Amino acid sequence: MSALKYYFDLMSQPSRAVYVFLKITKIPFEPYAVALRKGEHRTDDFKQNFNKFQKVPFIHHGDFKLAESIAIVRYLSKQYKDNVPDYLYPSGAKEQAKVDEFLEWQHLNIRLHCAQYFWYKWLIPNITQSPPDDDKIERLESAMLGSISDFEDLFLSQGHKYVVGNTLTVADIFAACELEQPRIAGYDVCQNRPKLKSWLDSVKKDCDPFFAEANVFVDKFAKKTLAAKM
Amino acid sequence: MSALKYYFDLMSQPSRAVYVFLKITKIPFEPYAVALRKGEHRTDDFKQNFNKFQKVPFIHHGDFKLAESIAIVRYLSKQYKDNVPDYLYPSGAKEQAKVDEFLEWQHLNIRLHCAQYFWYKWLIPNITQSPPDDDKIERLESAMLGSISDFEDLFLSQGHKYVVGNTLTVADIFAACELEQPRIAGYDVCQNRPKLKSWLDSVKKDCDPFFAEANVFVDKFAKKTLAAKM
Repeated sequence: MSALKYYFDLMSQPSRAVYVFLKITKIPFEPYAVALRKGEHRTDDFKQNFNKFQKVPFIHHGDFKLAESIAIVRYLSKQYKDNVPDYLYPSGAKEQAKVDEFLEWQHLNIRLHCAQYFWYKWLIPNITQSPPDDDKIERLESAMLGSISDFEDLFLSQGHKYVVGNTLTVADIFAACELEQPRIAGYDVCQNRPKLKSWLDSVKKDCDPFFAEANVFVDKFAKKTLAAKM
Repeated sequence: MSALKYYFDLMSQPSRAVYVFLKITKIPFEPYAVALRKGEHRTDDFKQNFNKFQKVPFIHHGDFKLAESIAIVRYLSKQYKDNVPDYLYPSGAKEQAKVDEFLEWQHLNIRLHCAQYFWYKWLIPNITQSPPDDDKIERLESAMLGSISDFEDLFLSQGHKYVVGNTLTVADIFAACELEQPRIAGYDVCQNRPKLKSWLDSVKKDCDPFFAEANVFVDKFAKKTLAAKM
């Protein structure tokens, strides 16, 4: 089989999720870091030859180019069947459908709201060197907290340990990567949420050491934000 | 196999997409209309016994309950293999991945932006009987037009007739259902976009008569909005 090339930036939540998935499954890949901060994804060459969507993550598998993190995980689960344990992305129709249900749900919920909070509170002010609009941040924080409460209610209060059942799946990895992002902007989603904290700790432990490896920049920037607050 | 119960409201874009998919594939199902306008989805009984997400569409397949339109289509494609022609949701890893790439992409692009325009321009003003905020509508219209241009650029300008290749797939059905929604609020996405119009006409024709059947309320409300403008 052709070499699998993985293009990513560890500052991107879905990039981290696919990175952890690749490492856990031991799918062999060549890593290519794309520096979003340098605008490497904004050139015509990148659009034409690397990824028409001009974002990360994406893969090149021989001549085949694919973007969208969840499509990538589904594709790799088919192409590298022997590497992917059934608990991680189940092959059974019903079991897989419940993982898919979360993966589809998260886009317009925790993904959208945690990312928007991060962009407007931290990323855009860091690029423009202008402080964020307080009213807007308050609205975005409220939307983010609503979606985190929904996540706890709909997935962590159903009588099982993980998002879908009693074993780790890719749903947990994607959720954890999204929920860690606001920490860079100074918001720890686990504060006053013991159930969420217990779940997140389990996911991190199960993905050890790859989750920590993927989160090296999250940790670094979160520490800087915390230090600036003090 | 247990009877498949399909719960939907034809005012919901993903409800229409799954409806068209079920009709084209001739998957036998019992239809259950849920009247969102009457708040039927907001009761505790609905949350506990029908769908914890309190939205549509969803299915009950014997004891198995599943929400999220795209997870539903994938599940049904596995459970009713003989009904689903390979062109509609391909079984080949690469072909399926390209359909998945679109289905994952659309959430935070045409789905988010066309729906937000519809909610704030038409739905909320109709519920509250208060006119929308003009500045907000202008921002939402601009975001919607940006995502429609991206859709044309990334999917309809790649040298093939449909979203993914030269045959209709579920990607086209989902895209068409989202892009029709703003018409209720008085915005025809095809204006000044001959490429988009030609594609949408092809999708409608291929899904005849089910697309028209699913769009009966869209057409009705779009006519009312148009008449009110004159």
